[in-house]
Amino acid sequence: MKTLIRGGTVVNATGRTPADVLVDGETIAAVLAPGSTLLGFDVAAHVDRVVDATGKYVVPGGVDAHTHMELPFGGTNASDTFETGTRAAAWGGTTTIVDFAVQRAGERVQDGLAAWHEKAAGNCAVDYSFHQIIGGVDADSLAAMDSLVEEGITSFKLFMAYPGVFYSDDAQILRAMQKAADLGLLTMMHAENGPAIDVLVSQLLAQGKTDPYYHGVARAWQMEEEATHRAIMLAHLTGSPLYVVHVSAKQAVEQLAAARDRGQNVFGETCPQYLYLSLEEHLGAPGFDGAKYVCSTPLRSRAEGHQDHMWQGLRTNDLQMVSTDHCPFCMKGQKELGLGDFSKIPNGIGSVEHRMDLMYQGVVTGEITLERWVEVTSTTPARMFGMYGRKGVIAPGADADVVVYDPAGHTSIGLGKTHHMNMDHSAWEGFEIDGHVDLVLSRGRVLVDDDGYHGTPGHGRFVKRDLTQYLV
Amino acid sequence: MKTLIRGGTVVNATGRTPADVLVDGETIAAVLAPGSTLLGFDVAAHVDRVVDATGKYVVPGGVDAHTHMELPFGGTNASDTFETGTRAAAWGGTTTIVDFAVQRAGERVQDGLAAWHEKAAGNCAVDYSFHQIIGGVDADSLAAMDSLVEEGITSFKLFMAYPGVFYSDDAQILRAMQKAADLGLLTMMHAENGPAIDVLVSQLLAQGKTDPYYHGVARAWQMEEEATHRAIMLAHLTGSPLYVVHVSAKQAVEQLAAARDRGQNVFGETCPQYLYLSLEEHLGAPGFDGAKYVCSTPLRSRAEGHQDHMWQGLRTNDLQMVSTDHCPFCMKGQKELGLGDFSKIPNGIGSVEHRMDLMYQGVVTGEITLERWVEVTSTTPARMFGMYGRKGVIAPGADADVVVYDPAGHTSIGLGKTHHMNMDHSAWEGFEIDGHVDLVLSRGRVLVDDDGYHGTPGHGRFVKRDLTQYLV
Amino acid sequence: MKTLIRGGTVVNATGRTPADVLVDGETIAAVLAPGSTLLGFDVAAHVDRVVDATGKYVVPGGVDAHTHMELPFGGTNASDTFETGTRAAAWGGTTTIVDFAVQRAGERVQDGLAAWHEKAAGNCAVDYSFHQIIGGVDADSLAAMDSLVEEGITSFKLFMAYPGVFYSDDAQILRAMQKAADLGLLTMMHAENGPAIDVLVSQLLAQGKTDPYYHGVARAWQMEEEATHRAIMLAHLTGSPLYVVHVSAKQAVEQLAAARDRGQNVFGETCPQYLYLSLEEHLGAPGFDGAKYVCSTPLRSRAEGHQDHMWQGLRTNDLQMVSTDHCPFCMKGQKELGLGDFSKIPNGIGSVEHRMDLMYQGVVTGEITLERWVEVTSTTPARMFGMYGRKGVIAPGADADVVVYDPAGHTSIGLGKTHHMNMDHSAWEGFEIDGHVDLVLSRGRVLVDDDGYHGTPGHGRFVKRDLTQYLV
Amino acid sequence: MKTLIRGGTVVNATGRTPADVLVDGETIAAVLAPGSTLLGFDVAAHVDRVVDATGKYVVPGGVDAHTHMELPFGGTNASDTFETGTRAAAWGGTTTIVDFAVQRAGERVQDGLAAWHEKAAGNCAVDYSFHQIIGGVDADSLAAMDSLVEEGITSFKLFMAYPGVFYSDDAQILRAMQKAADLGLLTMMHAENGPAIDVLVSQLLAQGKTDPYYHGVARAWQMEEEATHRAIMLAHLTGSPLYVVHVSAKQAVEQLAAARDRGQNVFGETCPQYLYLSLEEHLGAPGFDGAKYVCSTPLRSRAEGHQDHMWQGLRTNDLQMVSTDHCPFCMKGQKELGLGDFSKIPNGIGSVEHRMDLMYQGVVTGEITLERWVEVTSTTPARMFGMYGRKGVIAPGADADVVVYDPAGHTSIGLGKTHHMNMDHSAWEGFEIDGHVDLVLSRGRVLVDDDGYHGTPGHGRFVKRDLTQYLV
Repeated sequence: MKTLIRGGTVVNATGRTPADVLVDGETIAAVLAPGSTLLGFDVAAHVDRVVDATGKYVVPGGVDAHTHMELPFGGTNASDTFETGTRAAAWGGTTTIVDFAVQRAGERVQDGLAAWHEKAAGNCAVDYSFHQIIGGVDADSLAAMDSLVEEGITSFKLFMAYPGVFYSDDAQILRAMQKAADLGLLTMMHAENGPAIDVLVSQLLAQGKTDPYYHGVARAWQMEEEATHRAIMLAHLTGSPLYVVHVSAKQAVEQLAAARDRGQNVFGETCPQYLYLSLEEHLGAPGFDGAKYVCSTPLRSRAEGHQDHMWQGLRTNDLQMVSTDHCPFCMKGQKELGLGDFSKIPNGIGSVEHRMDLMYQGVVTGEITLERWVEVTSTTPARMFGMYGRKGVIAPGADADVVVYDPAGHTSIGLGKTHHMNMDHSAWEGFEIDGHVDLVLSRGRVLVDDDGYHGTPGHGRFVKRDLTQYLV
Repeated sequence: MKTLIRGGTVVNATGRTPADVLVDGETIAAVLAPGSTLLGFDVAAHVDRVVDATGKYVVPGGVDAHTHMELPFGGTNASDTFETGTRAAAWGGTTTIVDFAVQRAGERVQDGLAAWHEKAAGNCAVDYSFHQIIGGVDADSLAAMDSLVEEGITSFKLFMAYPGVFYSDDAQILRAMQKAADLGLLTMMHAENGPAIDVLVSQLLAQGKTDPYYHGVARAWQMEEEATHRAIMLAHLTGSPLYVVHVSAKQAVEQLAAARDRGQNVFGETCPQYLYLSLEEHLGAPGFDGAKYVCSTPLRSRAEGHQDHMWQGLRTNDLQMVSTDHCPFCMKGQKELGLGDFSKIPNGIGSVEHRMDLMYQGVVTGEITLERWVEVTSTTPARMFGMYGRKGVIAPGADADVVVYDPAGHTSIGLGKTHHMNMDHSAWEGFEIDGHVDLVLSRGRVLVDDDGYHGTPGHGRFVKRDLTQYLV
Repeated sequence: MKTLIRGGTVVNATGRTPADVLVDGETIAAVLAPGSTLLGFDVAAHVDRVVDATGKYVVPGGVDAHTHMELPFGGTNASDTFETGTRAAAWGGTTTIVDFAVQRAGERVQDGLAAWHEKAAGNCAVDYSFHQIIGGVDADSLAAMDSLVEEGITSFKLFMAYPGVFYSDDAQILRAMQKAADLGLLTMMHAENGPAIDVLVSQLLAQGKTDPYYHGVARAWQMEEEATHRAIMLAHLTGSPLYVVHVSAKQAVEQLAAARDRGQNVFGETCPQYLYLSLEEHLGAPGFDGAKYVCSTPLRSRAEGHQDHMWQGLRTNDLQMVSTDHCPFCMKGQKELGLGDFSKIPNGIGSVEHRMDLMYQGVVTGEITLERWVEVTSTTPARMFGMYGRKGVIAPGADADVVVYDPAGHTSIGLGKTHHMNMDHSAWEGFEIDGHVDLVLSRGRVLVDDDGYHGTPGHGRFVKRDLTQYLV
Repeated sequence: MKTLIRGGTVVNATGRTPADVLVDGETIAAVLAPGSTLLGFDVAAHVDRVVDATGKYVVPGGVDAHTHMELPFGGTNASDTFETGTRAAAWGGTTTIVDFAVQRAGERVQDGLAAWHEKAAGNCAVDYSFHQIIGGVDADSLAAMDSLVEEGITSFKLFMAYPGVFYSDDAQILRAMQKAADLGLLTMMHAENGPAIDVLVSQLLAQGKTDPYYHGVARAWQMEEEATHRAIMLAHLTGSPLYVVHVSAKQAVEQLAAARDRGQNVFGETCPQYLYLSLEEHLGAPGFDGAKYVCSTPLRSRAEGHQDHMWQGLRTNDLQMVSTDHCPFCMKGQKELGLGDFSKIPNGIGSVEHRMDLMYQGVVTGEITLERWVEVTSTTPARMFGMYGRKGVIAPGADADVVVYDPAGHTSIGLGKTHHMNMDHSAWEGFEIDGHVDLVLSRGRVLVDDDGYHGTPGHGRFVKRDLTQYLV
């Protein structure tokens, strides 16, 4: 299959340029000056399809580096399978996801990874890879890290939260980071002080404060800032680069900025929910509605200015990228587990379908530039996690993961409209986006075109990743 | 002329990829997957020349955004004409310069700009543009700023130093920045507190401290840090973006970093001399030799760690790019004017020929990555000054300003070796570089090939620049 | 005259203690354990008067280190003479003022100082001293600084504002600070970027924005922050200690804090108006009422949080003391000069009478501790300006400047109530204070007692000051 | 016993003044103007003894707020008993100590406190009080905190180091700080990340790095900085004031400074060893000699500038006071336990005898002022720990804990010279001090006079302390 995308504006992270893109098979064969007549050779005449992208942006497919399909959590499973979740991703212009394989204390890392491979293989609409969660740092799991790089798993995640579940103490973190520094692995961190937060949770529940709102109260910003700083110092001591997931507190961004100012390889992602939603409006919604917005780190107070600061962090590059932390649970049968006890609400928001649109809205409102949109949703995720060259860029030789995005289009988010995630609600219900995903190619194959879906389970392949390409 | 550069690694600011580059006439026609057989069409068979870049880097030509050819200064003129200076640039892989047209108090901006156009037209080996120095901010010069954008001059420079010559006081700076904010111009600033420095100069001379070393003593880092902060606050008040030239003090970088952390559009360049040379070793050289290294801002103390901090600033992106501030003066008849009085030594170092090599050395030593090398020497200068798309990137539609750089080559800097600047000495004498400029194309034409020069005066054209493309 | 103040709580800067105070003549003869029976000697039986201070605080008399009696400004004179102003001070528990002698460009420092001596001599109700304003830094005035220390004038003030009036440029500031560093003088600074502010003033007036409110708009916080930082760096370069007067912008406090964190001898005062009054409520009062509150630096926006930050700065000791900048002008015939042109409103607020009460209110509301109240209103001013031992402390040998303050008393501020300043209005009209000045002694003599005034012009003497006692 | 100390200069924290001090029984009866003839009453004629303090400083007796007499640690006991340790303190001009009563996990707080009362009662030469170590935070120990205030124990200490011994995890710290905030207790913290440090210790030992030097390597500054920040954030969350003990890393001081700049009640002490001794010279001494200097936090690298920064912190008041952390162990039979394994060396240095002299040396060298010497060694410790009024000041009503210090005297520290601590070596051997403790009174009784000792065990009494008097 040969496709020529003609007449559009190719947008990469450093700039935009009018150019045509030739896809031959699974990869981009060439980027051509407009017109596509090459030394007298009329490219359009030799392809199977010519896509007219006039007036539209031609951008690299989105890379969502933080998803949790089918994750077992709080006695239930995240409601999107790899099949439904990656299909929703495709609908929204995301052509690569990086999910988290789970190892728990007492389990073998190899088994956890194998289990995730099994869940995903043959089911994915788009390409996928894994980070490795190490929920039990011990001699065995440390030894198992040795083989991760050759498996193409070049990043792993630790938790400073969730004692008894995924939690690592500082001794464990130190040992794992030492190993990571040796191997070149990127350490990812859920940075919240779990033991302290759990005290606050139990105290609030004991006081009868059981509504979803108190989930946000218990997970105070001080405990995110603290853990972020602690992870930074442990990384400093060991020489490991550090990537902090789902940053939501402005003070945590300030810690990242301070570390970066002194030259440390420290990175942070934020998520659409921390840019748009808030403690007051969403976690504090009437009745049990706030449960839809229960995720960790939590939504933060708009009065305290966290949301504005996240946008600022994206502009200043103190936050380098935007993932979703997609971890969907239905209200019925899942979120409801926490009726009367917010601590039992499964943590997670589903956004994998809407990240590209939601972030493009930041371009519309002037929060970020068009180039920065591409950078934070695709280029930097690809570089950060060792996929650049294949993913994250419109360039010859790259996988033909291409999105044609129409800035004059419109997208109404909501059930019955654009919702393809396996959830009975959407945190984004009612959001109106100026912009529209017109065409989505994954390795040269059309997944979405003219609001129709053409993908199939199993098209997506596992991506063996290189070491991070983002270090200074 | 059609050229195919084959087998190399194309390096852009965000990553590297094996790819071939097709040049057709003055522009890049396509970037192709290795092999260059496009839909059965053998590109190599249809070009005039195939360059084998195997094992080499194919990078966008360098953009040196800070040169002073033929600048009248201190009763003499910078010793490189546009002809000699741009030829030296070409030798070193720099294919675009941005020089400074000068307006002085009492003169018309239009006349200054016209004079610089006249000096450059027909003489340049590579493309060139101008920033506008406004040395006399008044009602006339402010009014004249209105037409700069349509002239393609989208940046202008003020001086907080040199009272009586180029100096603007804070009232003038405020007015000019207000104008810049209205017009979208980028304000460039020589940030040193000139009035205070001049007191120190006169005191040192009165104490008989007349050696070149005292040039560095008089221009204390406190006075660079102070002026940098002052410019930042005036920019904050007016909303003007700010670009600080030739940053050399670590404390000035800290001021830039602080402003950037809070989201202000503030930028800084440094120069090779602030990365490699020092107050102690060079300005303090025996006899009058230190005169070779007299430039402003001055070389700083290595014991205080400024040089290391400049490298760090490049890594942290608190400094965004590297220019030369190329302002050459011969020892004989020029630098000698300051024998017995350091304040009479013409200020300037010549580096336009060696910037790409010197900065590549930072890749060799691990100070910066290969991608960052391209970014700070070409991509960001092009974006910062509104030339991206044409300059600063290997992409179709761009001007075919291409350098083939051999990481396995070697370059010995020095007179009688690689020196083509019109100077009787070199500040870089004896520097040995791991790396070599093999081929230089400027808008498709070969300027340098196999250590031979093939350029001509007048090939270089004036570049009308757009507004800065680097703002957040 | 021998007086025993018995039964009270003596409050000094580091703590409070129940103790009796014996005054013999002009000085404190002893501080005694409660009961005042010393080795069997009944002190009370041998004094002229025993004051019962039960339930009350016995504190050192206030030291107001920033007043402008009879100051010529804007074509008129501050409305309080040394006679009326010091009488008002006495009413409010302030027993020492430090006023500013003025030298202007072209005048002799000695003449300015002599003129102020003449205005004050024989007229003051309380002790007084002078700082020297140097409004024209040149060879003569620099030479004249040599004799200031022996005259007991150990501090001098420069202005970064008011070009053409008191303004010093950076070259002048540098020279004066070098001199100060040599002599041990404390450099005081009015830190606002006058040249830039004057541009804003003229632009606002040209736009017809002539109301008092625009006085605050023109004098933007950025221009206070900038000048504060500039003064700090010039002080850093010269080694001179620096005291910034009337700090009102939180960002200026942050600059002071940063300098202090790195060990620089940098100090700041704020004034009651910056703690209690605001741009919105007071400068922005309807009609021309805002003119009452025109002072420089200006009142700041409450929405931006400056007032809260000033209190915080007092707590953190990033601001060391509170003066009034007492510079009173009547509405009628004075403030009215600026009807239709805010820039013609004489700058100043009258507060010398109310500083102790207003600051005590901070104790009542919990902003500062009781000890800190004494420290910022008396002890630190005395130490800062070389009077400690005589002033600023309840200790034997000290001048008997003693205030008995009743925390259970009440003070209603306002015309017809407690107003003794020579003004036809009060910026503090309607303020209700929990606390009351019961008794005021100045060098042992009763000035205020039981709401009656017993002072006389000429009781107050000139205080020759030592070098600052506050440096680290 | 009535004593008049005549002719000296009384030095308090805010200033110095010539004055006489009358002691009647256990307290200061009066501070008198020089001459001591009060209303005709000749005080000298009515006392038992007149001390001539001409040319000398009369200062409040030292308060050492951090000692560990008889502490069980590492299988042995600190070598000074309350008898020997307080006698040594008296010799050095320290008239109050605050020691640490110990509760361990599983023990009752009340029992720990009772045990320490028993050890001290009847044995002390000077007054003493206790902080409470809570080594096992649980429901019982939290409940036991309720009665601490009425016992006069208003501060307690937690450990972030020493897992398995005194260690509290973050959940425990949070709960204890909440309690402290309720009760008004001051939380003291040993701020080192123990779990991480223990990993480093075991790794170093496994590598055969067993010398005392590696004690300093293992306890990296990052782990002190980290724990300091963590404690600050937990304190911020709970509202508890925080006092960090034995600060030695400059980065930890920077964390304290940052917290203080934003107004948090955060305090830090340092110790003489962190001002004078270093990793390179002392911990790295040849053979096993470094064992003498093993304490935690460890001595830091002089090349990294920690020592200079501690002095700076004392000047900037980012460190408020100096204690000793006196915890003496003999080389023979104690320090020797760690031959071949640095982790088995009992942690501690003995300094209780020399603190006043060592800190006075900072006055001699210009690091701190005379007043600051009194403040950091006596006044602030008294205020910080609720003893001001009785301790920490020369004022009537205060306990007559008075030291006459001769700035013209000399003290040679070392065994066989001035050493009275029960140790077979001294970390301060060979230090020569310009200054001498001439006379020491404790509650009016002479302990040291003319290099003779006149104290007795049991003179010292337990001091019931009030809540901290230092908060803002």
